[in-house]
Amino acid sequence: MAPRTAAPGRATTRGAATTVAAGNRAGPTRVRPTRRGRRWVWHFDEGGRDMRQLLGGKGAGVAEMTRAGLPVPPGFTITTEACLAFLKAGGRFPEGLWPEVQTSLGWLERTAGRRFGDPEDPLLVSVRSGAAFSMPGMMDTVLNLGLTPTTLEGLAQRTQDRRFALDAYRRFIQLFARIVLGLDPAPFDKALEAAKRRARAATDADLGAPALERLVAEMRRLVRAATGREFPDDPLVQLERAIAAVFGSWNSRRAVAYREFSHIPHTLGTAVNVQMMVFGNMGATSGTGVAFTRDPATGAPGVFGEYLLNAQGEDVVAGTRTPQPIATLRRQMPKVYREFERIATRLEAHYRDVQDMEFTIERGRLYMLQTRTAKRTAQAAVRIATDMLKERRITKEEALRRVEPDQIDQLLHRAIDPGARVEVLATGLAASPGAATGAAVFDADRAEALARAGTACILVRVETNPDDVHGMIAAEGVLTARGGSTSHAAVVARGMGKPCVAGAESVAVDLRRRQFAAGGVTVHEGDVFTIDGSTGRIIRGAVATVEPAVSGALRRLLAIADGVRRLGVFANADTPDDARRARDFGAEGVGLCRTEHMFMQQERLPHVQAMILASGTEGRRAALAQLLPFQRADFVGILEAMRGRPVIIRLIDPPLHEFLPNHDALLTEVAERRGRREHGPELERAERLLAAVEELREQNPMLGLRGCRLGLLYPEIIEMQTRAIGEATCELRRRGVRAVPEIMVPLVGHVEELRRTRRVIEATLQAVATERRTRLAIKIGTMIEVPRAALTAGAVAEAADFFSFGTNDLTQMTYGVSRDDAEGKFLGQYVEEGILPDNPFEHLDPGGVGRLMEIAAREGRATRPTLELGICGEHGGDAGSIALCDRIGLDYVSCSPFRVPAARLAAAQAVLRSERSSTA
Amino acid sequence: MAPRTAAPGRATTRGAATTVAAGNRAGPTRVRPTRRGRRWVWHFDEGGRDMRQLLGGKGAGVAEMTRAGLPVPPGFTITTEACLAFLKAGGRFPEGLWPEVQTSLGWLERTAGRRFGDPEDPLLVSVRSGAAFSMPGMMDTVLNLGLTPTTLEGLAQRTQDRRFALDAYRRFIQLFARIVLGLDPAPFDKALEAAKRRARAATDADLGAPALERLVAEMRRLVRAATGREFPDDPLVQLERAIAAVFGSWNSRRAVAYREFSHIPHTLGTAVNVQMMVFGNMGATSGTGVAFTRDPATGAPGVFGEYLLNAQGEDVVAGTRTPQPIATLRRQMPKVYREFERIATRLEAHYRDVQDMEFTIERGRLYMLQTRTAKRTAQAAVRIATDMLKERRITKEEALRRVEPDQIDQLLHRAIDPGARVEVLATGLAASPGAATGAAVFDADRAEALARAGTACILVRVETNPDDVHGMIAAEGVLTARGGSTSHAAVVARGMGKPCVAGAESVAVDLRRRQFAAGGVTVHEGDVFTIDGSTGRIIRGAVATVEPAVSGALRRLLAIADGVRRLGVFANADTPDDARRARDFGAEGVGLCRTEHMFMQQERLPHVQAMILASGTEGRRAALAQLLPFQRADFVGILEAMRGRPVIIRLIDPPLHEFLPNHDALLTEVAERRGRREHGPELERAERLLAAVEELREQNPMLGLRGCRLGLLYPEIIEMQTRAIGEATCELRRRGVRAVPEIMVPLVGHVEELRRTRRVIEATLQAVATERRTRLAIKIGTMIEVPRAALTAGAVAEAADFFSFGTNDLTQMTYGVSRDDAEGKFLGQYVEEGILPDNPFEHLDPGGVGRLMEIAAREGRATRPTLELGICGEHGGDAGSIALCDRIGLDYVSCSPFRVPAARLAAAQAVLRSERSSTA
Repeated sequence: MAPRTAAPGRATTRGAATTVAAGNRAGPTRVRPTRRGRRWVWHFDEGGRDMRQLLGGKGAGVAEMTRAGLPVPPGFTITTEACLAFLKAGGRFPEGLWPEVQTSLGWLERTAGRRFGDPEDPLLVSVRSGAAFSMPGMMDTVLNLGLTPTTLEGLAQRTQDRRFALDAYRRFIQLFARIVLGLDPAPFDKALEAAKRRARAATDADLGAPALERLVAEMRRLVRAATGREFPDDPLVQLERAIAAVFGSWNSRRAVAYREFSHIPHTLGTAVNVQMMVFGNMGATSGTGVAFTRDPATGAPGVFGEYLLNAQGEDVVAGTRTPQPIATLRRQMPKVYREFERIATRLEAHYRDVQDMEFTIERGRLYMLQTRTAKRTAQAAVRIATDMLKERRITKEEALRRVEPDQIDQLLHRAIDPGARVEVLATGLAASPGAATGAAVFDADRAEALARAGTACILVRVETNPDDVHGMIAAEGVLTARGGSTSHAAVVARGMGKPCVAGAESVAVDLRRRQFAAGGVTVHEGDVFTIDGSTGRIIRGAVATVEPAVSGALRRLLAIADGVRRLGVFANADTPDDARRARDFGAEGVGLCRTEHMFMQQERLPHVQAMILASGTEGRRAALAQLLPFQRADFVGILEAMRGRPVIIRLIDPPLHEFLPNHDALLTEVAERRGRREHGPELERAERLLAAVEELREQNPMLGLRGCRLGLLYPEIIEMQTRAIGEATCELRRRGVRAVPEIMVPLVGHVEELRRTRRVIEATLQAVATERRTRLAIKIGTMIEVPRAALTAGAVAEAADFFSFGTNDLTQMTYGVSRDDAEGKFLGQYVEEGILPDNPFEHLDPGGVGRLMEIAAREGRATRPTLELGICGEHGGDAGSIALCDRIGLDYVSCSPFRVPAARLAAAQAVLRSERSSTA
Repeated sequence: MAPRTAAPGRATTRGAATTVAAGNRAGPTRVRPTRRGRRWVWHFDEGGRDMRQLLGGKGAGVAEMTRAGLPVPPGFTITTEACLAFLKAGGRFPEGLWPEVQTSLGWLERTAGRRFGDPEDPLLVSVRSGAAFSMPGMMDTVLNLGLTPTTLEGLAQRTQDRRFALDAYRRFIQLFARIVLGLDPAPFDKALEAAKRRARAATDADLGAPALERLVAEMRRLVRAATGREFPDDPLVQLERAIAAVFGSWNSRRAVAYREFSHIPHTLGTAVNVQMMVFGNMGATSGTGVAFTRDPATGAPGVFGEYLLNAQGEDVVAGTRTPQPIATLRRQMPKVYREFERIATRLEAHYRDVQDMEFTIERGRLYMLQTRTAKRTAQAAVRIATDMLKERRITKEEALRRVEPDQIDQLLHRAIDPGARVEVLATGLAASPGAATGAAVFDADRAEALARAGTACILVRVETNPDDVHGMIAAEGVLTARGGSTSHAAVVARGMGKPCVAGAESVAVDLRRRQFAAGGVTVHEGDVFTIDGSTGRIIRGAVATVEPAVSGALRRLLAIADGVRRLGVFANADTPDDARRARDFGAEGVGLCRTEHMFMQQERLPHVQAMILASGTEGRRAALAQLLPFQRADFVGILEAMRGRPVIIRLIDPPLHEFLPNHDALLTEVAERRGRREHGPELERAERLLAAVEELREQNPMLGLRGCRLGLLYPEIIEMQTRAIGEATCELRRRGVRAVPEIMVPLVGHVEELRRTRRVIEATLQAVATERRTRLAIKIGTMIEVPRAALTAGAVAEAADFFSFGTNDLTQMTYGVSRDDAEGKFLGQYVEEGILPDNPFEHLDPGGVGRLMEIAAREGRATRPTLELGICGEHGGDAGSIALCDRIGLDYVSCSPFRVPAARLAAAQAVLRSERSSTA
């Protein structure tokens, strides 16, 4: 047992306080600046939330609550400047700090009505670090500081609970040993376990006072053994060393590494908060809990939360006892509950947002320990924003800022039930959002057959190609082992609004055996599994999912956004279904209608292949004539769905070999047949096809014969496409439907490419107009997706009615990075290691790609002031990128139909942001 | 026979002249401005060479000669303004034009001493078009104008040669009918043939006077039949219509199309030259010839040329008689010869350059018809420039301008004998200059064996890869059917200075049968053939070649260039041999030393492959340790060869799969073995290797895992390379040899890539320095080859001591064009059809790539004023690109060793050009 000694600490405190009081200061209770004009300590009732830099986040928050008149245990904050001065001086308190701390302690004693080190009724404090940014790796909390063998008895007396006092002392020693003295916690934990074993106690709470008495002695012995000194029994020494330990933890290895990683300057320092202890475990009229001012899951109004009587914070977290819903408190302690409700309302009004609060009740008295803005689900975010606006608690602009555009996205897709237990087998790229459950199936025909038989299935492939599209349509979702976010599977699935996990490199797909292996589990054909295209997770078995709900609240929020935003929001849509969905989500037009996906449908592909394999212009024309009716019907459908809103149709873009069978499969077939010494027409057919595919094959197809280059070599292709657009327009006009197609030329790098393509388009439109005895005024513009087009935009604009930034390719070429190759390989590592701040395919890169866009927008408009500017790359749906587009002055963004609502919100936020920065 | 009428023309002329003379003009012989201040006609002795715009090239040239006092047949020029006025007025002569022509004709009559339409001694003239730019598709020349049935007799009389006069008349009718009247020439040609048949005449010259008499009558009848009118017998009418026809030909379809194509404005118009006829076919004292003031093949001084007595220009060209060397004239007509020699000297002095002259001797009197700057061979160009400088006829600057940098290139490579007859089988890309003859061989091992046996051979492959390099070393040259100017074959061959024709798509290579087919001919292994890497020709059999001769003249010229140029000239060199050659050609450093070619040598490749296939860092380190001695030895060799000049070493750049066996070959092997139902270790080995290759395979390898991205993933590779550089430097230092390596990081797109790579390099250099107890101060810089690096050059320069523009990749990415894929496909068509003005891989594109370079140079230097700037792409050897580099302010260009002399000259010319434009 530790010897009980007098409390020299107390005398010291007094002495110090006296010394200070005897100094030439204005009063004994308030800290005043040192002679160099700096003060090191602020009481809680002196600070506020705008002093984060000096007092740290925690100090500023607790000061704000104190100043709002809430029942916060009193305390004071030692500034970040004191920390920096301490570190600079090589670990010594700066001049004046310790006197100020002592003065403040005196004030705290008077405020609390107890004295530090008082053997009868001792003041205990907590010591916590708190930097301006929340930062792991720093010392966090020492509780019950001020306990000594002497004050322990006082606490036991006062609480009439010796066991409680001993338990508090035991905890203090453990925390102080680990955090302040830096000792290995294992021997202390072991001692606790041994004590429990000896006392046959199941939990810590079952340890009686005698056992704790022995445990405390053992722990003090451990400290002596490890440090060669007695555990400090002077409360002031305890405090001094705890403060020094917090300061020192700013430079701990973990903290430094974290700051390096997060680009937080090393020059900020941390503050230290010293606060009176309160106890929720002082019997049946004490308790502790966590609550929100509104339901953070649904946004429903009214206090929401849970608490435990006779418990400490740790107990709520530990899960050994089941907390009660906060409503129960109303019955148990009606007065306390009413006070809490009142405080909750005040805090929400004060912070103008839903609060997440920690509280403790000590013997019927309520203390607020912490409040912060509550995290919430997407659904709750939308409801809270619109409700608080309706309640006139926040402005329209604030309501718009309260919801992240990405959250809206979640609301539009079926999601894994947040409460469901999941076994994740592997993780791939989150290529198309939403969750899907179904039987594994390994080829498109089988997927179609299963779907027809009513079995939900997920198509699993190494990678997909146009031959798989009917299987993708039939399946609930798609999983591929290869390919990035712009792979065929990803793009097609997003277009269909179907969940897709792509490029899951750790999934070993064995098409022959019809199975895949991931995370040590083999999934055979027919086995049910789940994919989450919003996170990229591949999950074993079936998982509960929740359906999307487009609520009235969301509609209201978006209507507000529409009133604020400057940018138009268009959608990328390749089919009438896409177009309808886009319109329903609020798209004002189609910013990108890709014609080649129309080529890839089953009944058309043979004609496309015949066209490609034709030996001359005439053969190509004949095959194209077969395609014309299909293409025209596509355009009729999309234009009709958009009801007079503009539809920007991009002429054929991909390299032709994408429409032909896979090269490696053909090569394998030919070689295998040769190996079998086969002869005959089968082999010859395969050989001929292989030769044709090899002829078209390219080393870097992305930079090869595609885009407008195709149309310049084979004008008959774009003649057919233009004719289909012209004829579709005429047909709708005949039926009284307004159609506003615009024609977009891809991959232009030099104005002359556009000029010549434009001539072909104009001549074809003129021919159609003459045949139909009408006029066709259709805008013709270009993608800006090749860096050179942006750099020479002034010239390119001479031949363009509009520009649409194709930022997928523009990013690939500006960075010299092939997305499909990079995302599975080095790009992930680049972002992880901070070589790049972001994945530039997700967030527009302002320095490179953004600069090119600015050049193009400025110089294009200088040539042609009426030039329409938009973006149709994937960035068109990304909030940060939308803000950049707004700043550059684009006219619209275009994104996938499901991103349209998020883009509407992001566009409104962009306006708020630019207003804020322009008034700043 | 045509009726002989009086010559009303003459009276008209007189009348007009009288009218003019009666006007208020200063004198009767000189044309004076019309009242609107414009004059339409200039006599030859009034114009000069600076009036090209108004008088056309021909008019300005002949005026210059006249004013220099040379014996030029007199005449006058009708201005281009008259042409434009004529066209504007819808085909009517502008006011004052015809009177001025008549006045001038009067002056011409007096000067010539003969009169137009004079029945006794008629003046005959030629009428020629002549625009400011030489232009096909316009009417060119009508000779003998002024002949009528009446004047014919006068000419016959005067010349005492009726046959001559009739023949002149026949020619005039034919020319006039075709050119002025626009009649189909076929019936006239047929009539001539019929006359020859009737007279049993072998050639035109064998037709006697009676036969010609009948022929003239027949031709006049043909004109009447076709036009419904008589052939005009009034010389003035002939002249008026000939002038109108020249004017009208400016808007002929061919001329308009030519101007469209050549970007010549339509607003220039053409001038018309009317000149007295002289005849070289008036007997033994007449003649005609072509001569140069110096030998245009060798540049040797002294008049050089040939002539024919009693002949017209046509006869010299026709080749029916063999012309005599001009020296013979000295004996035949010593006086004429002396006069001609004097004139030649004067002309050369006057034009300050070698002249190509046409002359005619009419009855012992010498007339100069034309003079122009002579075209010359490369050898002659260099000799003439230095000789004329030595003779103080031209300045240093002029001497430098007289030689095209591309000509120098020719001098450094063996060439096909210009006189040799060649049968071209096919044409590919001129991938590496020079001519080579040898036996066809289809694999590298066989090439090596043949070369060892002393047989010259040419390696023929579909495309080459690192496994072929030893065969390329052994062969005289390389021919490939696939791949562009940056294909493996092309790059390696250029590095070796070995002729290469690449991407010859029309050559069908059959490796199995060891043969290739081209142009209907099959070349089997062992058959001798020839390639010309300077033109891309593939030639049947052996062809005589001429050896390169680096003359003293060239050395002198380059020394002058070195004194003028501002840009440094470095060379790209991967081996000590390259480096020595570069130094011998005058390179001041190595601007690009590619380390990966060192990896591809036979004894190293297995270690490289082991490194790539290693499963972890330790395996890679072990393999790299094997490579270190090789790499260090390479660097020792190159650094030693450069004797203290800087050597910029680029760290590993290409994607790793380039070091592995070919994917398709492996896939074929595996599939064939499977088709044969093989089992066992062979198949398994192939399968394992295939899996590894597929793992590394990329869809767009140019934009994949390469360059600095490799080093960031596998720092051990660049640690090895840096160590090799550091150790090589220490070793040379120990031996007293100064070595100045610099380390260049490829494919940087974001400054952070460079920063982290730099850290690895610096740490490694520090380690080497510590081990060797020395210091290593080695510059570290980056390629600028990714558009983003150029756009963010201000940031990139923070971590770079130098920039080197990698314009091959920069052009590929800025244009979005893969050179290997494009050159065989659409790029050729693009340039042919004028979609692009140039192949941007040959000539730097100023608008796109050049703009990026300007941005990077300006913003990089703003960050770091000492930043060194260079270019190491293929453009570094192109004259136009060098001029751009000079303008942007680079410090040096770097090109292949063989291009160094050309680049030295081009760099000097760039200075002259910028001085000229800055004083303009």
